[in-house]
Amino acid sequence: MNQIEIKGLGVSLPKQSVTFKSGTRYRISGRENHLQLLVESAQDALKKSGMKLDEIDAIVGACAVGLQPIPCTAALVHEQLSPKRHIPAFDINSTCTSFISAVDIVSSQIASGKYKNVLIVAGDVPSIALNAEDKHSYELFGDGAVSTILSSSQYGKILYSNQLTYSKGAHMTQIAGGGTSLPSYHINDNNRPLYQFHMEGRKVLKLSFDLIDEMMRNVTKDSGIKLDEIDMIIPHQASPALGLVMKKLGIEKDKYIDIVSEYGNMVSASVPFALHYAIQKERIKRGDKVLLIGTAAGLTTNALLLEY
Amino acid sequence: MNQIEIKGLGVSLPKQSVTFKSGTRYRISGRENHLQLLVESAQDALKKSGMKLDEIDAIVGACAVGLQPIPCTAALVHEQLSPKRHIPAFDINSTCTSFISAVDIVSSQIASGKYKNVLIVAGDVPSIALNAEDKHSYELFGDGAVSTILSSSQYGKILYSNQLTYSKGAHMTQIAGGGTSLPSYHINDNNRPLYQFHMEGRKVLKLSFDLIDEMMRNVTKDSGIKLDEIDMIIPHQASPALGLVMKKLGIEKDKYIDIVSEYGNMVSASVPFALHYAIQKERIKRGDKVLLIGTAAGLTTNALLLEY
Repeated sequence: MNQIEIKGLGVSLPKQSVTFKSGTRYRISGRENHLQLLVESAQDALKKSGMKLDEIDAIVGACAVGLQPIPCTAALVHEQLSPKRHIPAFDINSTCTSFISAVDIVSSQIASGKYKNVLIVAGDVPSIALNAEDKHSYELFGDGAVSTILSSSQYGKILYSNQLTYSKGAHMTQIAGGGTSLPSYHINDNNRPLYQFHMEGRKVLKLSFDLIDEMMRNVTKDSGIKLDEIDMIIPHQASPALGLVMKKLGIEKDKYIDIVSEYGNMVSASVPFALHYAIQKERIKRGDKVLLIGTAAGLTTNALLLEY
Repeated sequence: MNQIEIKGLGVSLPKQSVTFKSGTRYRISGRENHLQLLVESAQDALKKSGMKLDEIDAIVGACAVGLQPIPCTAALVHEQLSPKRHIPAFDINSTCTSFISAVDIVSSQIASGKYKNVLIVAGDVPSIALNAEDKHSYELFGDGAVSTILSSSQYGKILYSNQLTYSKGAHMTQIAGGGTSLPSYHINDNNRPLYQFHMEGRKVLKLSFDLIDEMMRNVTKDSGIKLDEIDMIIPHQASPALGLVMKKLGIEKDKYIDIVSEYGNMVSASVPFALHYAIQKERIKRGDKVLLIGTAAGLTTNALLLEY
């Protein structure tokens, strides 16, 4: 029951977008890059929260893929923001649901008194690693960044959280090359797809269907809060099958956010962007019970119920 | 004052080593790889702790560089260990001091009651990314992995922790290529060094000298525990200058671990390996006040004082 408040959410989307039959996806072009999106969203979060950088006690990176192998992404965002006070920068990673993990983990640190205000920076640029021959993922993913400030507060609170990994799905969604298992310098014309995003869409969907059902049962059972007491569900915008998954769970259309068509799957930015969207469209107000849920590469299920 | 106990430390080093004038460095060869080291160290940690995998509530990756861009490293370790109980897997990254960050962050989660026993897996294989033309780093780094189990306990506790990033040093230690800023597929014969480890040794040392001095003053001032009350200091084995840094701080040789000559800088495995070494050589016993310190790429300083 950590007492925390999600302050303003800051957003940065690329200037250009492409529209497929399945919807619109924002993608970086020209000189735009991952770091710039992250930094812009962080600056926007500070502005929307009415806070100054020198009130921030830590910068946490919550991206799926890092800017560089070394140092961590948060340190490179720290460099651009250039805080005058000395504060830490570190990353938390559970791929697509890194934002949910970061909110959960950081809330424990805030509850323990370690920090008061933490800047969480999420965002990815999947467009640079897509394989045009894999039509499903090529037309699904979009770039974007969303940041927020998590603060100690007497208002909002975390009511429940649960994260679980089912690693039989570890390779169903992956970028195999570029880390230590298959270093960058082994790339060649033949193995290039291994350095690109790969998703076995049907397998992931099949596994996710079962796991999301189990996750939702755990949420209501373990939190003691019934489904109809939850005001809004913010799911990871994983795929166009989102509506089907929600229908199977018996969740009405007005109880969850589905913007897969307008924005696609923006990886780690997806959950906070949907949260930002819900707030902006006034589908969430302060005091509401909001459930963030998602499945991530790993395969990880992640659920966090909070009083906004 | 989180009540936690560091249980057994498990270690995996490559079979082969090379010896330079500056010392011995263990490096993977043949079919050995990063994942294997991590998994072996995790299995060793379970054995040394007298614990079974089904007692573990979460797997946390604390490596500087990941196995793959997607999914997170902990999920791939999770896959190899294959726990029967469903447990989460996620990564925490502050580069070389990821182990210290992980112990600190996870201890908050244990204190909040979220987990009882968490497996922390640290380790890197810098040898695959070294540039032979940069003699200093080429002869300094070694591969290795060290895991431990962090448990709620009435015995040990965290007395103090402090992590700070000084991002004017963000590019002094880096691997620039392989993430989103410079993707793998841009590698060519000319820019190959950008995908390798790069350290401006003198600059890092100069900045670290000042920061470590400040960090140590903060430790004693903010914790209220004097330097002579600390039983053992476990520094990150950053470079052969470790002895000079400690001398400047006025710390006697018997009060800290220096194994740079025997093992080199093993990146994220360095701090937990030195801790393991100190325990094995009986230079630490249960109840001792032990200070883990280090500087990491970022540039981040990290200090954690615990009652072992």
